[in-house]
Amino acid sequence: MSIRKINVGIVGLGTVGSGLIEIIEKKKNTFKKLYNLNLAIVGVSAKRKTKKRSFNIKNYIWYQDPLKMLNNPEIDVIVELIGGSDGLALELAEKSLRKGKSFVTANKALVAKHGVKIFELSNRYNSRFSFEASVGGGIPIIRLTQNSMIVGKIKNIYGILNGTCNYILSKMREDNLPFKKALKNAQNLGFAESDPHDDISGNDTAYKLAILSKLVFGFSNKISDIFVEGITNIEEIDIKMASKLGYRIVLLGISNLNNNKVMQRVHPSLVPNNSMIAKVNNELNTIVVDDEFTDKIMIVGKGAGKMPTAASVMSDILNIVDENKKKVFSSKANKSHKLISQNIDKREGKFYIRMGVDDKPGVLADITLFFKKQKISIKSMFQLDNKIKNIVPLVFVTHKVTEKKIKLVLKRISILDIIKTKITLIRIEDM
Amino acid sequence: MSIRKINVGIVGLGTVGSGLIEIIEKKKNTFKKLYNLNLAIVGVSAKRKTKKRSFNIKNYIWYQDPLKMLNNPEIDVIVELIGGSDGLALELAEKSLRKGKSFVTANKALVAKHGVKIFELSNRYNSRFSFEASVGGGIPIIRLTQNSMIVGKIKNIYGILNGTCNYILSKMREDNLPFKKALKNAQNLGFAESDPHDDISGNDTAYKLAILSKLVFGFSNKISDIFVEGITNIEEIDIKMASKLGYRIVLLGISNLNNNKVMQRVHPSLVPNNSMIAKVNNELNTIVVDDEFTDKIMIVGKGAGKMPTAASVMSDILNIVDENKKKVFSSKANKSHKLISQNIDKREGKFYIRMGVDDKPGVLADITLFFKKQKISIKSMFQLDNKIKNIVPLVFVTHKVTEKKIKLVLKRISILDIIKTKITLIRIEDM
Repeated sequence: MSIRKINVGIVGLGTVGSGLIEIIEKKKNTFKKLYNLNLAIVGVSAKRKTKKRSFNIKNYIWYQDPLKMLNNPEIDVIVELIGGSDGLALELAEKSLRKGKSFVTANKALVAKHGVKIFELSNRYNSRFSFEASVGGGIPIIRLTQNSMIVGKIKNIYGILNGTCNYILSKMREDNLPFKKALKNAQNLGFAESDPHDDISGNDTAYKLAILSKLVFGFSNKISDIFVEGITNIEEIDIKMASKLGYRIVLLGISNLNNNKVMQRVHPSLVPNNSMIAKVNNELNTIVVDDEFTDKIMIVGKGAGKMPTAASVMSDILNIVDENKKKVFSSKANKSHKLISQNIDKREGKFYIRMGVDDKPGVLADITLFFKKQKISIKSMFQLDNKIKNIVPLVFVTHKVTEKKIKLVLKRISILDIIKTKITLIRIEDM
Repeated sequence: MSIRKINVGIVGLGTVGSGLIEIIEKKKNTFKKLYNLNLAIVGVSAKRKTKKRSFNIKNYIWYQDPLKMLNNPEIDVIVELIGGSDGLALELAEKSLRKGKSFVTANKALVAKHGVKIFELSNRYNSRFSFEASVGGGIPIIRLTQNSMIVGKIKNIYGILNGTCNYILSKMREDNLPFKKALKNAQNLGFAESDPHDDISGNDTAYKLAILSKLVFGFSNKISDIFVEGITNIEEIDIKMASKLGYRIVLLGISNLNNNKVMQRVHPSLVPNNSMIAKVNNELNTIVVDDEFTDKIMIVGKGAGKMPTAASVMSDILNIVDENKKKVFSSKANKSHKLISQNIDKREGKFYIRMGVDDKPGVLADITLFFKKQKISIKSMFQLDNKIKNIVPLVFVTHKVTEKKIKLVLKRISILDIIKTKITLIRIEDM
């Protein structure tokens, strides 16, 4: 496998742009080792050159006019992180592809509005157009629908596509806050922008839904085809009533295909409290794809944020070189890591322990003494009612302790006369 | 884009093999249209030719000896669905790849044991080796780790990897069944095999975990490196106690990377009842990938079963031709579907409706009369306590009704003198 070279030009140095530069600088040696890929940032461009940044812009060629980047034959990939459905973003997309450069973007408005046109251009000029970060931030939903869910007919695609709205609705519910207060808190914590209109109006969700509908149904939709209702009218009383009725309120984007008709809608929805989707809290996003053969596949992850979104952009850049796939099971990767196997004895965690003991005074004291001697602290203890033939089941829950230690103690306890059954040990994993 | 041809030879005609043949026969015209791909089954092989099957084996060349298939130059892909970590499966893998044929398998034991060796062979002979269906059935976890989660360092990968165990543990909990009874039920319903040892011992989970560890850590592990404990010792009392303590018992496969040490373990685990993983019920599987940049990505879906597994095998076959990816945003796909957009007015569903009304007798009767006239049946109604300035909030939950109808009624109600606030309408989505 020969070494490939990718030179990148980045337009837009905001949160995601900075994250991307950090990833490339941190990981370029790893990418070389794992993927035989020489990756370099050649040019950068942003509105203001003088802004304080987390990296030194002097390491790269500065372009005050990003369109001039297209004239640099060294640059293979243009990464557009400026936003906006038209104007400069669209111009960059079209001109990059016409010049045979790959075009990578995180711009949902651009892809929702002009995706089909840009894609056809990329086919005509045999260049690559990728947009993994435009939907679901760190969730790789674009590649999932492009490369994996390509067999059966997809009937429905839906999900929680906006982290800001989900965060606000979570906090309204958990902390009994009115909408405005929850929004304020989200802004203070960086989960909502100072102008939150695009998020809370449902528009951001509608862009993402438009992209998903295009991808899974091959449907050339317009944003105006989508029914959109935001979360601004949700009151505390609705959150409480929903809870009382066994539901949670989330903002869903839903697209259904039925008899060659596609219905696309974005609106607050009551979903059953015991459903998986109701557990997708705070800034998490989720997307469910409902397929003819595989049934529902659900994917959950961080739908926004600097590093998750930048990593999605980075995955698009790496996928431009198809040889990446060759990394599967590479024993070379293995050697470079020098990994060794570790025994479960090193696990440190909580344990659930059950044993049957003689029903007589002092037994509990005897057993707890063994735990105490090994400095294992017990979080809770239960003596169960269902006594059988004078044997009482006892259950202990420990605090964190190593596997090695707990096994040693249980071995000693197991040989005591008062222990009348096998000791059951189940590990507790607080995920 | 020129038309490509893939001729398939299928070895093993059990559940998954039959599912694959059904998918190919049903979908080959669609694949031709969408992916410019001529797909054909050329040869088939199984132990017994005379068995009753869901398809006519006379449509294909029958090979009593599957190794003879390798001599047919027409066949491009060998699909191995017979199982077993060594013997015929391994021989087929090696010989197919050496002959330059692609090799697709759903065989977790084979991939767990010989994956690295087979992969290196595929590199040497420039042929393809794919095994999406070997882990997670219908969940596309292999491609997710190969194509998407390729940027950051992965720290943990874990999940519920065996549908049979998850089904048994779910039923023990939901229906208060002892292990043996739950196993029996699972066998009767086809969720467990007549010899369930591989599943309930945790071995099946260990094979899958071994594959995942290899993929994400580049770790040449042996199955014997993995600590394995099955679910046979879990008793009803443990399920009940776990529930009382706020936990659920699931069988997890867990692999962690820490300081170049990989700890791999399979064992029953208590997970918090309010965690997402605790909602993964019955035959569902889930895998969580914990990455340096994107944090946790969780994917949930059917981990086994005829069609989900066969669709995974099919996705491997389609991915042999890389042009598939070109289908993204294809306006051709759009034309072939003739899709049209549908208005939300056609939605039929339940609604949550809130309004503030005058606090005087007869108001409720007036409003319910409007619903009755339009034959909208009300599932529940609440008069809330928090009266403000003689205005009482009322909440209605409807049975299923069309969007159009509910809007019409609410329009009429909204102009009544007794209605003192805006009417809030939130859709209920029973996912």
